[in-house]
Amino acid sequence: MRNIRCVVEYDGTDLCGFQRQAGKPTVQGWLEEAVASLTGRATAVIGAGRTDAGVHALGQVVNFHTDSGIPVDRWPYALNSRLPRSIVVKDAAEAPGDFHARKSAVAKVYRYSVWNAPFPSVFHDRYSLHVRVPLDVGAMREAASRLVGRLDFAAFRAAGSTPVRSTVRHLQVLDVRRDGPRIDIEAKADGFLYHMMRNIVGTLLLVGEGRRPPEWVSEVLASGRRELAGPTAAARGLCLVLVEYG
Amino acid sequence: MRNIRCVVEYDGTDLCGFQRQAGKPTVQGWLEEAVASLTGRATAVIGAGRTDAGVHALGQVVNFHTDSGIPVDRWPYALNSRLPRSIVVKDAAEAPGDFHARKSAVAKVYRYSVWNAPFPSVFHDRYSLHVRVPLDVGAMREAASRLVGRLDFAAFRAAGSTPVRSTVRHLQVLDVRRDGPRIDIEAKADGFLYHMMRNIVGTLLLVGEGRRPPEWVSEVLASGRRELAGPTAAARGLCLVLVEYG
Repeated sequence: MRNIRCVVEYDGTDLCGFQRQAGKPTVQGWLEEAVASLTGRATAVIGAGRTDAGVHALGQVVNFHTDSGIPVDRWPYALNSRLPRSIVVKDAAEAPGDFHARKSAVAKVYRYSVWNAPFPSVFHDRYSLHVRVPLDVGAMREAASRLVGRLDFAAFRAAGSTPVRSTVRHLQVLDVRRDGPRIDIEAKADGFLYHMMRNIVGTLLLVGEGRRPPEWVSEVLASGRRELAGPTAAARGLCLVLVEYG
Repeated sequence: MRNIRCVVEYDGTDLCGFQRQAGKPTVQGWLEEAVASLTGRATAVIGAGRTDAGVHALGQVVNFHTDSGIPVDRWPYALNSRLPRSIVVKDAAEAPGDFHARKSAVAKVYRYSVWNAPFPSVFHDRYSLHVRVPLDVGAMREAASRLVGRLDFAAFRAAGSTPVRSTVRHLQVLDVRRDGPRIDIEAKADGFLYHMMRNIVGTLLLVGEGRRPPEWVSEVLASGRRELAGPTAAARGLCLVLVEYG
């Protein structure tokens, strides 16, 4: 069996997330349907990250096993002809048989975009959170630096989510950059807990608005208590930028 | 009567252009309805450029006369609360009584965006034309330089459009820039004939694709014949960036 690895971009606005759900438009659902219609066989498509409803991707990675003889460079064209405009397969490559989009990943990069201006931007509205009050990016950056390292992110994990073996993750990068009204928060880690990125962003926003000092973030982290962190930032601002493999 | 001047941004994808049309969603229609609902009076809203269906704006300028006592800095908030997400009033100011958004304009800047990559971008798809074949930006730039000046643009005017006094316009800038897969064609002129920008872009694309040499553009211009120029580029790539006043 061949193992085909693809890079997928999607606008999550009108999708119900990555994971297949009966009768709902999802990335996995669309991809599996496209592969099945090309090969005539029901095929499981594995994704690197199970992004939530409304979350976007520039570089989601998926893989699937197939007996089909379609040349690897034709897969993107073949799949795209069966996908809605909101999902685009940008690249396909033959992968070793044991390659697994999720389990083989060594790091992921997520970016969260904020539109910080008196009024929302009609062009960025689908891909960013609009925040009217001017944000202190310096304070957000200082707070962010306190979250970098191999740390226990229990406080930033969605309350009530499925238990995991460990809540320790290695957050290698947490950058906050401003470019005019746009603020991008970029994070790279070996893995993200459920809602971890959106909860970190919600926490940094409280600092940016001046409602909490940067040091407070260290207290939240040390407490391990979700209820001390900020609210979960809206899905629309989040994008899975890339997935790294060894 | 006060004369209120506003800067308006819109995503034209789901709008039927600027100009009011009974029963259709248009920028002018939405703005006039919003002003009327705030002031209780039917009010004409004048726009600097009558953009077509599907065309976007970052800096459309409009004005309207009113007796309303709403403070000028509250107009954007008041209007935005009555507008769809695809239209945002970004600024309002008191203008002299004789200010007229269209007649007082001395120059306009339009930008046309092309997404030049094997596959469309889900994020730029609403705001750009997807062109698969790699474009020669150097050749496009050379062709563009031949259109700069106070020239007769009859060849780039929509066939069958309403007669105008003169087809001479002063095209001050026509830039072609590439940033990765994105190519922006930016034009500044004292005025644009109907479809002039989109016809210039359609013509430059033939040069970029290598189907015509840059010199050919001068022949098209000199001929004054619309049928010699390239096709009208799709509306989705076009954006009214700004309007200048004396």
